[in-house]
Amino acid sequence: MMKTNAGRFFEDYKIGQVIAHAVPRTLSGGERALYHALYPARHALYSSDEFARASGLSAAPLDDLIAFHTVFGKTVPDVSLNAVANLGYAQGRFLAPVWPGDTLRSESEVIGLKQNSNGKSGVVYVRSRGLNQRGEVVLDYVRWVMVRKRDLDAPAPETVVPDLADVVPAGDLVVPKGLDFTNYDFTLAGEPHRWGDYAVGEQIDHVDGVTIEEAEHMLATRLWQNTAKVHFDATNRDDGKRLIYGGHVISMARALSFNGLANAQMVVGLNGGAHANPCFSGDTVRAWSQVLDKAETAAPGVGAIRLRLVATKGGAPFALRDEDGKYRSEVLLDLDYWALMPI
Amino acid sequence: MMKTNAGRFFEDYKIGQVIAHAVPRTLSGGERALYHALYPARHALYSSDEFARASGLSAAPLDDLIAFHTVFGKTVPDVSLNAVANLGYAQGRFLAPVWPGDTLRSESEVIGLKQNSNGKSGVVYVRSRGLNQRGEVVLDYVRWVMVRKRDLDAPAPETVVPDLADVVPAGDLVVPKGLDFTNYDFTLAGEPHRWGDYAVGEQIDHVDGVTIEEAEHMLATRLWQNTAKVHFDATNRDDGKRLIYGGHVISMARALSFNGLANAQMVVGLNGGAHANPCFSGDTVRAWSQVLDKAETAAPGVGAIRLRLVATKGGAPFALRDEDGKYRSEVLLDLDYWALMPI
Amino acid sequence: MMKTNAGRFFEDYKIGQVIAHAVPRTLSGGERALYHALYPARHALYSSDEFARASGLSAAPLDDLIAFHTVFGKTVPDVSLNAVANLGYAQGRFLAPVWPGDTLRSESEVIGLKQNSNGKSGVVYVRSRGLNQRGEVVLDYVRWVMVRKRDLDAPAPETVVPDLADVVPAGDLVVPKGLDFTNYDFTLAGEPHRWGDYAVGEQIDHVDGVTIEEAEHMLATRLWQNTAKVHFDATNRDDGKRLIYGGHVISMARALSFNGLANAQMVVGLNGGAHANPCFSGDTVRAWSQVLDKAETAAPGVGAIRLRLVATKGGAPFALRDEDGKYRSEVLLDLDYWALMPI
Repeated sequence: MMKTNAGRFFEDYKIGQVIAHAVPRTLSGGERALYHALYPARHALYSSDEFARASGLSAAPLDDLIAFHTVFGKTVPDVSLNAVANLGYAQGRFLAPVWPGDTLRSESEVIGLKQNSNGKSGVVYVRSRGLNQRGEVVLDYVRWVMVRKRDLDAPAPETVVPDLADVVPAGDLVVPKGLDFTNYDFTLAGEPHRWGDYAVGEQIDHVDGVTIEEAEHMLATRLWQNTAKVHFDATNRDDGKRLIYGGHVISMARALSFNGLANAQMVVGLNGGAHANPCFSGDTVRAWSQVLDKAETAAPGVGAIRLRLVATKGGAPFALRDEDGKYRSEVLLDLDYWALMPI
Repeated sequence: MMKTNAGRFFEDYKIGQVIAHAVPRTLSGGERALYHALYPARHALYSSDEFARASGLSAAPLDDLIAFHTVFGKTVPDVSLNAVANLGYAQGRFLAPVWPGDTLRSESEVIGLKQNSNGKSGVVYVRSRGLNQRGEVVLDYVRWVMVRKRDLDAPAPETVVPDLADVVPAGDLVVPKGLDFTNYDFTLAGEPHRWGDYAVGEQIDHVDGVTIEEAEHMLATRLWQNTAKVHFDATNRDDGKRLIYGGHVISMARALSFNGLANAQMVVGLNGGAHANPCFSGDTVRAWSQVLDKAETAAPGVGAIRLRLVATKGGAPFALRDEDGKYRSEVLLDLDYWALMPI
Repeated sequence: MMKTNAGRFFEDYKIGQVIAHAVPRTLSGGERALYHALYPARHALYSSDEFARASGLSAAPLDDLIAFHTVFGKTVPDVSLNAVANLGYAQGRFLAPVWPGDTLRSESEVIGLKQNSNGKSGVVYVRSRGLNQRGEVVLDYVRWVMVRKRDLDAPAPETVVPDLADVVPAGDLVVPKGLDFTNYDFTLAGEPHRWGDYAVGEQIDHVDGVTIEEAEHMLATRLWQNTAKVHFDATNRDDGKRLIYGGHVISMARALSFNGLANAQMVVGLNGGAHANPCFSGDTVRAWSQVLDKAETAAPGVGAIRLRLVATKGGAPFALRDEDGKYRSEVLLDLDYWALMPI
C-alpha cells in the first residue's frame, strides 16, 4: 500500500461527503508572537490583555486570522493539494474567539461540484468549520477551488452549484460574548475614528508597504501547517519562484489596514475574497480599503462595518479593475469582510 | 477627515506636551523565544527560570532589551515617523523587570526643542516611559531625533535644550528587588570572570560575527510594533535597501558580547548611545566592549559595571573614530550602559 | 586574563573528564511555535494537547528534536567550537518527555580520544546528557567530532575508542510513562498506516521538498543557542556561504517524513547518524525513509519501528551510496532512529 498522501482529485469528491481533517493544533502565546513578527499587526484588542479586559473579554484572544489560517491549513491536504487555483471564499463567520491554550481542528463538507468543460478539472465547493477542544465551532466558511482530475475518463458528477449569498447579513454576525465598547480608549487603540466617522463609499489608502521575503512567507505558511508544495519548493516552477500563500497576503493587508482602520478591531464575517494575482518574494505589498456598508449590533457600543480590503504590489490606490472588468495586474487580493468597531 | 496617521512634524511638538502612545502589548514566552531566535542571546538569568530563582528572582524576566524595544516601538508613530535621524539616547534606567504576562504601554514628554538653522527641520527631545499593567514605570529614557517641518514657514519655537548628564550616577541605578548574586553559579553562567576581574579601561573583542538578513530584521522590528517604513519598504530608497532598525543592532551587539561578558547579566542603565552609521542586510555585525567604570551596589554580591559596547560591520576591533574625531565608517553603534555583575 | 572563550582543543580533553555546559534554558510554547514555523512538523502528539491526552500523556510534550537541539546546542561551546567535522552519533535515547516550562541543562563526559595520524587533530568521543530542572536525564547520546590541536607538539593521548553498539536494543528504549495508543485516532493523526502495515525493508519517498533560506537556518540555530560561527558569519568562508547546522537538516527531514510516517509519533532512540555532505541556503531538502526493524514494547498499543531517514538535496530517492561505497554527493543526512507507533 502506498504510504504517502497524493491528495484527492476531482473525482474523489462527492456531494455531502464530510472530511475530518488531520492534525489538531494547540495554540499558545508563541503563535501570537510569531504572528506579530510576521505581520505589522497592531489592533489593540489582540495585542493587550488589559485592553481586551476593558472591552469585556477575559483576555486578548488570538488574532482572528490566526484562527482562520490554522483552520484553513488543516484543509489543504484534503482539499487543495491538487488544486489548480483557489477561486473564492463566501459566507464566512467567526463564531467564537480563540484563546491561547485552545486546540483547533477542522472539517469540511462537500457542498458543490462542477466539472469544467475541458474535462480535465472541476470546481469543488466545501464548507469548512474550525472547532475548538469543546466542540464549539469557532469559524465557518465556504471555499471553492479548481481541482485536477486523476483519471480524465472518470465520469462527470452531477453539477451542483451552491447558492452562495454575496454577503453575510449583518443580523447573522456573531459578536463575541461580553464585548462592550462603551468605555473604549481611542488613544490606546491608536486612532480617534469611530464607527460614526466612516461613510459608506469612503476609501482609505493605508499608505505603508512591506517588501516580502521568502523566509517570512514560508515561516508563516508552515506555522499554519499548510503543506501546499508550491509555497516551499523552488524547483516546482520553471522560474524558481515560490508562490506565496494567499493567506499571507490577507494577513499582511489586514495588518497594514491598521493605519486608517485601527478601530476595526474584530473580524466577524468574510463575505467574499479573491486572490486576483499571485504574489512572489520581492513584491512590496500595500493596501487600501473601501467602506461597503455599516450596521448596528445588539452589543453595547459595538457597530459593524463592511469593508473591501484590496492588497496590491504596485500601482495607485483605489484602482481595482481594468477596462475589461478584469483585476488589474498589480492587484493581489480583493477581500470583503465585516469588522466590529466602537460606535 | 483624513483617516491615516501622517505622523507629527517638528512644529507639532510643544515643550511639556505628554503623548500617550497607542497599542499596549502583552508579552509572553513567545516574544522571548523569538528574541532568542533573532539574537544569539545567552545571558543565563534571562534564559533559565532556575538560574533566575537561584539569583533571588521569582523566574527569568524577559530580556531587558525586549522591554526597551517594546517601549521604543510604541513611540515611533508619534515621535519618529517623520524623523530624519535618531540622534541619541541619555539617562535611561531600567526600573523593574518585565515578566511574561506583563502588558506594557508607553508615554513620552517633550523636554526639548531646537529648530535647525536651515529652517527645514529641528531636534525634538523626549523623555519616554514604559509602564506595566500596574502603572509601574519599568523603563525611562531620553531620546532625541531630528524631525522634518511640515510647513517651512511655521515659526521656530523657543529653543530649549535639556541638560542631560553624560552618565546615570551609579547611585541612581535600580537593582531589581531580591537580586542576590552571592550563590552565583559561574559554570552555568558560562564564564568565570567576576566583577573584580574587570579593570576600568579594559577592552574585549567579542570575536563572533553574524551576517544579517532582511527577513530577520523585519521580523524583529515588527515584533516590537515599530512601524517606521524605512525598515520594511524596499521601494523607499533608490538603492532598494531597507535600513535596519538601530535597536536590531543594539540587541545583536549585546548578545554577541556574551563572549567575554557572560556575567554582565542585567542592563540597568543606558548612559548614551549613537547609531554611527546605517546597517543593511548583508552586513556582518561584530562587537567589542570597553570597561568605562565600576561601582558597588547595595544588593548582596551585585556589582555594577559601565560598558561601552561598539558594533561594527568590518574593520579591526577597538577602532572607533578617525583622525577628524568622526566615527569610522564601519562603526554601527556606540552604546554606553550599566550592567549588573556578580562581585 | 583573556575574557573570551576560544573553545577547547584536542589536547584539552581527558578521558573521564565531565564538562558541565553553560546556560540552562527554560522552554515554552514559544519554542514550540517557532519549531512549527521553521519545519513542517505535523505529528499530532506534539501539535495537540487533546491528542496527547487521548494518548495517555498530560499534554503535548515539546517535539523530541527541540530537546535534542537544546541539549546539543549547549555542548557546542565546549565540544565543537574548534571541530573540523561532526563525525557521528550513537546510542542516543530519549528518556523523558520535555514539557513547556521545563528547564534543560547539559553535561558531557569524554569517553574516547584518538589523535589523527597527521598529528594536527584528533577525534573526541563524548557522552552528552540533557537534564531537566528535577535532575532527570531526558536525553543521552554519544557524539564524536574531529577537533584541531592548539599545539601541534602536544603529546598524543593514549588512544581510547569506545565500544559503541550499532543500534540501541529495542528492550532498552524508554516509552514515556502513561503512553497508550489503544484509542489512537488515525484520522486526526493524518494517516491510516499502523505499525503492522510497515514491512522491514520497505522504502518510503516523502515526496515534498523545502528550499532553505539563510534567515531560517540562522533563526533555528540561534534558538538552540548553538554558537558555532560557521552557521552565522558569511565572511568565514571564501565563497561567502554559511554552513547549515546539521540539526536543521535533521528536523527538516523528520518533519517531511510525516508524509508516509505520520504515525511514527515519538522519537525514542538515535542509533546513529552521519551528516554526509554540507547543506547550504538555496538547497531544496527532500527525504526518504527505510524501515530497518520493528519491535514490540510493553506499553499498550505501542510498537517500535527502526527507521533510516535520508535527507537529500537532489537526485532520486533511495540512492544512498555510489559504487565506491561513499555517500552520493546529494545525500545530506543518513539517520538511524527508533520511533513509537500505534500497533
